[in-house]
Amino acid sequence: MAFVNSSPRFCGIRTFMRMPFQSTPEGADVAVVGVPFDSGTSYRPGTRFGPAALREASTILKPYCSVLDADINEMLKVVDCGDIDTIPGYMEESLDAIRDGLIPLFHSGATPVILGGDHSISLGSLRAAHAVHGPVALVHFDAHSDTISGYYGKPYNHGTPFYWALKEGLISPEHSTQIGIRGPLYSRDALSWPKSQGLRIVMGEELHRRGMEPIIAEVLKRVGDRPAFLSFDIDFLDATAAPGTGTPEVEGFTTYEALTMVRAICSQLNMTGMDLVEVLPDKDPSGITALAGASVAHAFMASLASRKMQHHTR
Amino acid sequence: MAFVNSSPRFCGIRTFMRMPFQSTPEGADVAVVGVPFDSGTSYRPGTRFGPAALREASTILKPYCSVLDADINEMLKVVDCGDIDTIPGYMEESLDAIRDGLIPLFHSGATPVILGGDHSISLGSLRAAHAVHGPVALVHFDAHSDTISGYYGKPYNHGTPFYWALKEGLISPEHSTQIGIRGPLYSRDALSWPKSQGLRIVMGEELHRRGMEPIIAEVLKRVGDRPAFLSFDIDFLDATAAPGTGTPEVEGFTTYEALTMVRAICSQLNMTGMDLVEVLPDKDPSGITALAGASVAHAFMASLASRKMQHHTR
Amino acid sequence: MAFVNSSPRFCGIRTFMRMPFQSTPEGADVAVVGVPFDSGTSYRPGTRFGPAALREASTILKPYCSVLDADINEMLKVVDCGDIDTIPGYMEESLDAIRDGLIPLFHSGATPVILGGDHSISLGSLRAAHAVHGPVALVHFDAHSDTISGYYGKPYNHGTPFYWALKEGLISPEHSTQIGIRGPLYSRDALSWPKSQGLRIVMGEELHRRGMEPIIAEVLKRVGDRPAFLSFDIDFLDATAAPGTGTPEVEGFTTYEALTMVRAICSQLNMTGMDLVEVLPDKDPSGITALAGASVAHAFMASLASRKMQHHTR
Amino acid sequence: MAFVNSSPRFCGIRTFMRMPFQSTPEGADVAVVGVPFDSGTSYRPGTRFGPAALREASTILKPYCSVLDADINEMLKVVDCGDIDTIPGYMEESLDAIRDGLIPLFHSGATPVILGGDHSISLGSLRAAHAVHGPVALVHFDAHSDTISGYYGKPYNHGTPFYWALKEGLISPEHSTQIGIRGPLYSRDALSWPKSQGLRIVMGEELHRRGMEPIIAEVLKRVGDRPAFLSFDIDFLDATAAPGTGTPEVEGFTTYEALTMVRAICSQLNMTGMDLVEVLPDKDPSGITALAGASVAHAFMASLASRKMQHHTR
Amino acid sequence: MAFVNSSPRFCGIRTFMRMPFQSTPEGADVAVVGVPFDSGTSYRPGTRFGPAALREASTILKPYCSVLDADINEMLKVVDCGDIDTIPGYMEESLDAIRDGLIPLFHSGATPVILGGDHSISLGSLRAAHAVHGPVALVHFDAHSDTISGYYGKPYNHGTPFYWALKEGLISPEHSTQIGIRGPLYSRDALSWPKSQGLRIVMGEELHRRGMEPIIAEVLKRVGDRPAFLSFDIDFLDATAAPGTGTPEVEGFTTYEALTMVRAICSQLNMTGMDLVEVLPDKDPSGITALAGASVAHAFMASLASRKMQHHTR
Amino acid sequence: MAFVNSSPRFCGIRTFMRMPFQSTPEGADVAVVGVPFDSGTSYRPGTRFGPAALREASTILKPYCSVLDADINEMLKVVDCGDIDTIPGYMEESLDAIRDGLIPLFHSGATPVILGGDHSISLGSLRAAHAVHGPVALVHFDAHSDTISGYYGKPYNHGTPFYWALKEGLISPEHSTQIGIRGPLYSRDALSWPKSQGLRIVMGEELHRRGMEPIIAEVLKRVGDRPAFLSFDIDFLDATAAPGTGTPEVEGFTTYEALTMVRAICSQLNMTGMDLVEVLPDKDPSGITALAGASVAHAFMASLASRKMQHHTR
Repeated sequence: MAFVNSSPRFCGIRTFMRMPFQSTPEGADVAVVGVPFDSGTSYRPGTRFGPAALREASTILKPYCSVLDADINEMLKVVDCGDIDTIPGYMEESLDAIRDGLIPLFHSGATPVILGGDHSISLGSLRAAHAVHGPVALVHFDAHSDTISGYYGKPYNHGTPFYWALKEGLISPEHSTQIGIRGPLYSRDALSWPKSQGLRIVMGEELHRRGMEPIIAEVLKRVGDRPAFLSFDIDFLDATAAPGTGTPEVEGFTTYEALTMVRAICSQLNMTGMDLVEVLPDKDPSGITALAGASVAHAFMASLASRKMQHHTR
Repeated sequence: MAFVNSSPRFCGIRTFMRMPFQSTPEGADVAVVGVPFDSGTSYRPGTRFGPAALREASTILKPYCSVLDADINEMLKVVDCGDIDTIPGYMEESLDAIRDGLIPLFHSGATPVILGGDHSISLGSLRAAHAVHGPVALVHFDAHSDTISGYYGKPYNHGTPFYWALKEGLISPEHSTQIGIRGPLYSRDALSWPKSQGLRIVMGEELHRRGMEPIIAEVLKRVGDRPAFLSFDIDFLDATAAPGTGTPEVEGFTTYEALTMVRAICSQLNMTGMDLVEVLPDKDPSGITALAGASVAHAFMASLASRKMQHHTR
Repeated sequence: MAFVNSSPRFCGIRTFMRMPFQSTPEGADVAVVGVPFDSGTSYRPGTRFGPAALREASTILKPYCSVLDADINEMLKVVDCGDIDTIPGYMEESLDAIRDGLIPLFHSGATPVILGGDHSISLGSLRAAHAVHGPVALVHFDAHSDTISGYYGKPYNHGTPFYWALKEGLISPEHSTQIGIRGPLYSRDALSWPKSQGLRIVMGEELHRRGMEPIIAEVLKRVGDRPAFLSFDIDFLDATAAPGTGTPEVEGFTTYEALTMVRAICSQLNMTGMDLVEVLPDKDPSGITALAGASVAHAFMASLASRKMQHHTR
Repeated sequence: MAFVNSSPRFCGIRTFMRMPFQSTPEGADVAVVGVPFDSGTSYRPGTRFGPAALREASTILKPYCSVLDADINEMLKVVDCGDIDTIPGYMEESLDAIRDGLIPLFHSGATPVILGGDHSISLGSLRAAHAVHGPVALVHFDAHSDTISGYYGKPYNHGTPFYWALKEGLISPEHSTQIGIRGPLYSRDALSWPKSQGLRIVMGEELHRRGMEPIIAEVLKRVGDRPAFLSFDIDFLDATAAPGTGTPEVEGFTTYEALTMVRAICSQLNMTGMDLVEVLPDKDPSGITALAGASVAHAFMASLASRKMQHHTR
Repeated sequence: MAFVNSSPRFCGIRTFMRMPFQSTPEGADVAVVGVPFDSGTSYRPGTRFGPAALREASTILKPYCSVLDADINEMLKVVDCGDIDTIPGYMEESLDAIRDGLIPLFHSGATPVILGGDHSISLGSLRAAHAVHGPVALVHFDAHSDTISGYYGKPYNHGTPFYWALKEGLISPEHSTQIGIRGPLYSRDALSWPKSQGLRIVMGEELHRRGMEPIIAEVLKRVGDRPAFLSFDIDFLDATAAPGTGTPEVEGFTTYEALTMVRAICSQLNMTGMDLVEVLPDKDPSGITALAGASVAHAFMASLASRKMQHHTR
Repeated sequence: MAFVNSSPRFCGIRTFMRMPFQSTPEGADVAVVGVPFDSGTSYRPGTRFGPAALREASTILKPYCSVLDADINEMLKVVDCGDIDTIPGYMEESLDAIRDGLIPLFHSGATPVILGGDHSISLGSLRAAHAVHGPVALVHFDAHSDTISGYYGKPYNHGTPFYWALKEGLISPEHSTQIGIRGPLYSRDALSWPKSQGLRIVMGEELHRRGMEPIIAEVLKRVGDRPAFLSFDIDFLDATAAPGTGTPEVEGFTTYEALTMVRAICSQLNMTGMDLVEVLPDKDPSGITALAGASVAHAFMASLASRKMQHHTR
């Protein structure tokens, strides 16, 4: 029996899952890219260090997923393309930089795995996805709907990306779903507008009560075979599993629930990309939030590998 | 659509939920008051900083509760009355100061929301509640029964408040319930005396096994329409959700379970007040314990708002 | 009613559960011993401070277990025998020191409760158990199977103890079970060899899906009345409950699940000893991992007490 | 002898030094005001929580300074005016809000003590000071000159305030001094431009070599009786004394050196106000950085009290 | 050359400097004893865990002091006598317990090294020292004089021990010295009373300005050959060296200054005992405060060893 | 004036000072390489994460050193060569791997800057340096002499590298100096052997008393123009400046003293390489130890740049 490893996992320059660094996505099936931007944060900042923390945490992740029986390395070439430069304190210029930095990735044919950063970056992600794929079906795990039209007299921050995504037609509301929304709201009608647009909002209380299966089925049905995009805010997880985030929320979900749903959904859909946002290392003393975040990205890649296997074996 | 916010939630002097500071409860429906006292602590001290941590955590809590469909700001005037001064190292004088500081709040007609401090303060809370309302039905969430008669040759600390509350007739045992009691005990008969007084003790193991519904029903039935008081020790929660407490306990409960029960119970009862105790910021590096504690107080206020709505709409 | 305590639990030299220190196990039913060794760690080291952290956490554990209705102090004489000296950086010499240090404990008739240290120490534990009891039935809670044959060209580290235990005939595979294995693996066939030896591996996903009862029943049946050994890696627990460990794993289990299974299994079997490994205090800022670990040892002792009671009352 | 205290210092709503909260500075000699803004941060963000941390740390500061033999409470009425609202992610709008919020304070006759926030806020502070007092003599303690013209293609962040202050004529360079500048620079001529404008830059190495006395004398001479403004970046202190800041610097100064210089300088000058910036609580686990910052503000107030005493007794 | 060590220093039950545990001081020259009491704390509590932290930190201290050329193990038999039980929340009963627990140690002929706890315990220490030795000359390193007569209407806490020691005649003021007093005071005449009793107070500013030598000489001269007692509050050290304490103070002293003075003074005097107080582990994430505290105790023991050597070789 | 930066310093894959990653040192003047090995640690492990922490901290270091008036980027091509793989728990095999990994770097003509790892790696560093340069003059900053012959019956760990370096003739003792040695020792003659070999040991106490200048002069004189090697153990610094290390020592030195000495010495000598060891991120919550360590490497590179400038301008 061969020895499995010649290099301890704590060795080497930190790239995601110790994959090769490559400044462009040439030849890759999956391109990991960081967007270390947190000027859209309304409470505790610091997610600009999210990509570094996710890379650190990912070093212990190995390629084979036993739940999906899929080996990432066997089916996919994954590269780490580094980070997109943004400008702290300049929201709108940064959104442009994110969109402009991501469009070539979406065009390359590689599936982007985008590591935030706060949730404001998703507007950049979706503008880029839309530029290549047209309106996408959003699969959105979060404690917060992020569909407010503005804060403090200004349009863009991490509470508004999906308001603008809907307004700009970047996502197709009737095929899109938000899952896990919970916690105190500003008012009774805070969610009226996105619902009126056709967005399906699965409140946390509903998910707790009904369980995962019907929700998975509903998401698969809503999306169908359209191009889909996964946006995963780490605060979908309960505050116990994601203490390291800007606005943690109680009454949330376990990593078992999160990863089971991501695997069940993404391995059955036509995923164009994903972002994983709101990991805040300064409030994550043991690194479990970053580990959970890296595990979501791993589950997504394993889903891509599983789907490719399904197609190969058809 | 109007912008929802003109002041970022991290701005301003810290009061509970950013409510107005007012040294007396005049005109208020709910009076939040801190009792920063921890000389009754038998293991890790520091809950004297609990009120400050709960105020800090509460700044992100917004007024509307979607589970109860109740808006705190719409139905209630909430004020923060600051802290009651106590004397570190002088247990009995401090209990007097707590009682004397709380009686005017109970008399004012406002419902007190008392932020501890360790659990020894509940003897002061209940002495004040009793002075105004007579014996109350206790709804007590905790890992520990706190019905020991004394420690180290002395009567008062955070393991004894309910022994003395029973002895002094402050609570009505046949209408009172302790929920979530668990963990190693000093001896087989540690809980015999309180049970013999008529107190119902729902062990943690029973709650895990039977689920929330029957327990909620039993509590509602035991209390009926009597004046009730909620005492919530944060260590009712599992150590994962409440690492920041003096004697954390494993095998505990999630915030979803806790808040669901608090909302289900308190929105149906005649609540005269509550205390939230044992939040210890020094062991809470990510603030999730304080957030959970502030969320319990929020759920309690939302329950008051819901009950007021029910009465209005009858 | 007598006062329960004359010495606050934070007082005194730290021994496990404040039990007497005794350099040899004479006259004891249970001998707690630390093995502060972490040179077998492949990622984050520091479990050499595990025994000290477990002793600190254990000071709040009282003797009576209400779930099993068993009092440790009533049924058992427990002593703390201090630590076994090992040699950092010298793997093989340290394994010898562990075996040589433990054999007298196993011979003494006391049941050893061994506090690690990383999981590499279990090879020492099992070599000692085998020297006295012959092949044992392993009851192994863990996120990782630890049955790899070697790392980086060398045979021994914390990922290999059960490979060598199987190879050396220290455990009886057809009576042994691994429970909770999960997370990304090096390859599809990483677990083929141990399965081919007859080891039963209950994947985490299976335990989540089927629940505890059938697994408990299966373990009890596999072991029967053979001498058994409990090896509990703290990362069986979810990363939320065990952040303080070298390679935390998401999608894990609660302390309620862990302790329920340990009590249900160990109180029905002929346990020759146990080890509790991989508690890493540096990543455990609130001490909840050490508390969970100490609680596993407590549940094991309560199980011994319960079993002794069963035999007495037969 | 009377008891000195009736309220423990850990009690009460947190205001600076437990001074009264007052939304406007009416009747005050000193108006403390927070500017919780950090969108100008080029490395680690989080100073938006600086004002809260400084208030918390200040609760242990008592009114009498034995070095200056001056009692703050005796000579001055100090109030805490709360925080100025800014807009995360919108640099230029926030600078306007800061200036507009501060001008009324400068006009009121109270001396503003401004608590940051990152150093970008000083451009707002100086614009407000200038609106009332005209060009001021800057007394600037810092590791960094902050006279770069822009970053990442944009003009404003915490590395540029004094470039723009010079460009806009807000400070009078020939009467202004920067003290403690050190650490690696972008290039040999990074400081050429500000020096060419007449600014005196005392490098850290010079201060270490020559000691405090000649520098104090030089500053006093340069300022004379002009209106002066103190801008104190906490990273003037060595990283050991100010670990809690965004870009800590080694080879810095002790709190004894800092406070001695502040007291010696400010008690002899006509100070129009001060700001204390770059305290980052997330990297300040023991709170010593916030304590040092609050102590600088205390030393400044004691200097005002001392100067008022000098004038009274003339 | 022999190998110096057979047991790694991280192994074993934690006693001070790994010295033998012995419940009584029989046969010992030095008896280390913990007093885990913090109910006298006016700000941040938690020093009840000071003795445990000091023992942990002391495990790396070896016996030979090169500055004094003295070997502790060669000259002295040191034992660790464990902790004295106190009663949280009961100040006066605890002071009695401390005095009663210490008197036998002072009587035994061993020199007590007392590990606090907060500074209120020194009243107990001095009452015990006085019972055996009569009034002692106090050598007191601290940021605070602790000579206030009471707080919040009550006489005893950690700000009052030396008021009562003077009142009760436990110390001889004309032979006693306080060194390092600094920081804001309640009022101009806060130190008038102790000075009027004859106590010499060396303010921190004086020590910074004049240096160590004249102060050492003055202390030696004031004490002469009377029985002396060292009380060392860890906040004598600057907040950078002692972040882990209840009321840290800036503008303090280095460990080099502290240990140099302790060695220079104690090796020349007739020391009857010492206490080391106010180490607060919860604010000491890297353990440097506990290490500094343990090093003070080590310097004291090395001084005793040095003095014994001097006497032997006379 | 051009904008100085197009990429914020928190962006991008972490390499030392954001220098290019290059697996071999071709064309480089300086080759940074990590040795993440800590199995030689006798107390707190975890320095295997030192290289990652040093890279993270180094991202804020800019190229120009104003003290030496030298620009690293102008004079030198610096590359980051990643890490050398070692084998946890296998001391001797790892020393071989380190030597074998470093020899090509020394041969390449680039000056290696080696980032540890614990101090045991220096035996590997010196074996490699010796293989290329013959015996080197050691310039060694440390709190500990590390010249013990063995621990626990085994020859190699972080307390023994210079014993073996002397024994193997890797360093030339009469040209070598240890600076800053302090703290308790095992015995009076712990340093006799290295002194007898001709090594000059400057005790910490001597450096405090005499100041830096005579020591700098002595080192320069002892080395002359021989090939020299800098070994810098971060615990040369006081525990306040280097809390993040395995065995911190009090009574140490400031970063100003350390960097001043490194610059003064290394800019005048023929340096063949350096190592920077014992940075332990787990005990470095604010990152100041890693920053200090990275700054030592920066000062070393600036010294190389300065020396190259001197030669160019001759």
